[in-house]
Amino acid sequence: MALLVQKFGGTSVADPDRIREVADHVARCRRRGDSIVLVVSAMGKETDELLRLADAVARTKPGREMDMLITGGERKACALMAMALHDRGVPAASFTGSQAGFRTDTAHMNAKILEITPGRIRDALDEGIVPVVGGSQGVSTANDVTFFGRGGSDTTAVALAHVLGADACELYTDVSGVFTTDPRLVPEARRMDLISFDELLEMTATGCPKPAMRSVELARNYGVKLHVRSAFTWEPGTWVTEEGPMEQAIVSAVTHDTSEAKMTVAGVPDRPGVAARLFRALADADVNVDMIVQNVSTHGVTDISFTVPHEQLEVAVATSESLADEIGAEAITPDHDIARVSLIGAGMQTNPGVAATMFETLSAQGINIEMISTSAIRISCVVREDDAERAVAALHEAFELHKAPEERSKV
Amino acid sequence: MALLVQKFGGTSVADPDRIREVADHVARCRRRGDSIVLVVSAMGKETDELLRLADAVARTKPGREMDMLITGGERKACALMAMALHDRGVPAASFTGSQAGFRTDTAHMNAKILEITPGRIRDALDEGIVPVVGGSQGVSTANDVTFFGRGGSDTTAVALAHVLGADACELYTDVSGVFTTDPRLVPEARRMDLISFDELLEMTATGCPKPAMRSVELARNYGVKLHVRSAFTWEPGTWVTEEGPMEQAIVSAVTHDTSEAKMTVAGVPDRPGVAARLFRALADADVNVDMIVQNVSTHGVTDISFTVPHEQLEVAVATSESLADEIGAEAITPDHDIARVSLIGAGMQTNPGVAATMFETLSAQGINIEMISTSAIRISCVVREDDAERAVAALHEAFELHKAPEERSKV
Repeated sequence: MALLVQKFGGTSVADPDRIREVADHVARCRRRGDSIVLVVSAMGKETDELLRLADAVARTKPGREMDMLITGGERKACALMAMALHDRGVPAASFTGSQAGFRTDTAHMNAKILEITPGRIRDALDEGIVPVVGGSQGVSTANDVTFFGRGGSDTTAVALAHVLGADACELYTDVSGVFTTDPRLVPEARRMDLISFDELLEMTATGCPKPAMRSVELARNYGVKLHVRSAFTWEPGTWVTEEGPMEQAIVSAVTHDTSEAKMTVAGVPDRPGVAARLFRALADADVNVDMIVQNVSTHGVTDISFTVPHEQLEVAVATSESLADEIGAEAITPDHDIARVSLIGAGMQTNPGVAATMFETLSAQGINIEMISTSAIRISCVVREDDAERAVAALHEAFELHKAPEERSKV
Repeated sequence: MALLVQKFGGTSVADPDRIREVADHVARCRRRGDSIVLVVSAMGKETDELLRLADAVARTKPGREMDMLITGGERKACALMAMALHDRGVPAASFTGSQAGFRTDTAHMNAKILEITPGRIRDALDEGIVPVVGGSQGVSTANDVTFFGRGGSDTTAVALAHVLGADACELYTDVSGVFTTDPRLVPEARRMDLISFDELLEMTATGCPKPAMRSVELARNYGVKLHVRSAFTWEPGTWVTEEGPMEQAIVSAVTHDTSEAKMTVAGVPDRPGVAARLFRALADADVNVDMIVQNVSTHGVTDISFTVPHEQLEVAVATSESLADEIGAEAITPDHDIARVSLIGAGMQTNPGVAATMFETLSAQGINIEMISTSAIRISCVVREDDAERAVAALHEAFELHKAPEERSKV
């Protein structure tokens, strides 16, 4: 008999039919002998609707009030889920984040968990009751309702799995697991049975949609085993653990991300302090700079390129232009039409041929590489946005990701 | 400078426009120098929508979960209202019933207030912040969210006005006050400037739609001055106080109620214990019996008539029929097509001519009276449902309710 924390996202509980289907699943798990703690998100697009309502009543929206408003979505889903379970003869009780013992700081809209005292959840489990916990919420040290931000239900689930000593944290979603690449682009994309936290973190940071990065970091830090799986097909999905597969694949996945734009500040003097001045100013303007690449200096001048979210490009340009004279930049060139294509794989640490194969594959496709950035388990190339899908398909084939890891030839 | 508790019902905060309009009003009151505590209901038909959702997910609906679900409606309205106020430069903060200090028993769906510790509300007022409190909700002795039932926001407002020592409790609604009769039936109906608690209680018990009876009882018990007024025209409405007007009108209002059916148990022996047996059985079947009239006995048998809500008539008939042999009833006659027409007025206690005038007025209209029941400040007649509107109009004219109280001739 296992203790499982099961988290269901918005699409998994989008309407009464879906809520009843999830309740059926929980009832089956209970008959199998497992103890279940549920964490649910707000139904479907409810959070968006609440945000629209807030926009309609006010231009200024204090964080305290936004959190009071938005956390109502999860709370509603919780209560309905508890009723649906009760209806199937499964004793269940809903709990707000506060009732579940989530104590947070006072950073509204983006609260951080300080402490969890899940006494009421433990009591419920002891009494054979399924606790249904509202995701992404807690109560602050000032006794106000707080929201962890979008995607925070994953964090709630992982944190609860940790403090309750659960055997696993199951993140149910609308995809059936983590794939070697986006199956909409590459039909041969393969669902991975197992992936390491580090690999998944590199994937979430480069355009793989789920689960939320913060929750994966939390799971890695506390060694909580994750199981990313479908609330629609109910088939087993992808396990995420400390180690990844014993037989390590060299490359696990290919991802692409079109959510960022590129900016180049060209012709700046290659001397200390220039980059610092630029990126401090961007940070002060709340620009989220992601990849940064500085070219080799020629004739004492260099180019600095970086990526930012599309919607922040304008601010980034203005900030950079206001500094142009001071830092001696010759040209500032914004570019919306780029994509980042990344290879992820813990095995590439010990396989230096991976980068070469990647560049050769892109070259054979006539795809120009505009920026390169690497980490221990990731290589990212910025390419033209129009080339991104072709790049993904070519790399997926080159690294034989459609085959099971043990059947792939080495690079 | 007055301290006012202002309660806004569902239609008053039905959409973003309405919420902004209420916020404008509160801002005006503040500029006038008043301190305001707001109590808000769920927006428009939201409570109904939540109930429909619950019906769609489950047949069995535990009270604890229903309360968690439904109270979300008020909470959402609160948060939006606080934002709208903030947007107008009025510092405001939303509070759930629990945060506002409402401690209740554990009777879910119909919780009773045990204690109010409004420390956070007082602190907010001291800091010049408008507290916006979720209506109809609290936290139980078992630390679960509780709901006071439909119309419970009025109770929240009156209770807060009492514990805060407010100068008045303003109940804003979609009508502009309490009228001498239903203005949809009698265009000459007059808005009363002042009415006593007792009169208003008799009116709410006989078909006058607002405010909720429980809140009026609470206001009477604690001497909280009520002001029933419009959130649409913002004009002054009707004050409800201990005493009513100094110059007491004999008759204050005419009401009618078509929500009940009549049942007659005919030809029962006129001996002790028969009525007791019948009404105990009806109580055990959860039938809400309202008016009860027993006719004068002739030849040792009597008829007992009573009214029950339409939807309980079937149960009442079945219960009575199962007892027919035991109590020796000759016939059980249900009748859906009745209405109750009532005169309300504290002055009628000392004016015995009121009943006679009422009966004469109905007689002159050819309207048959089927049952009569009286209290110290009310006379009710059951008539054919088809005759009810005509009866109301005739009585309103006969007692000159369209005139100001001091201009009416005595009966």
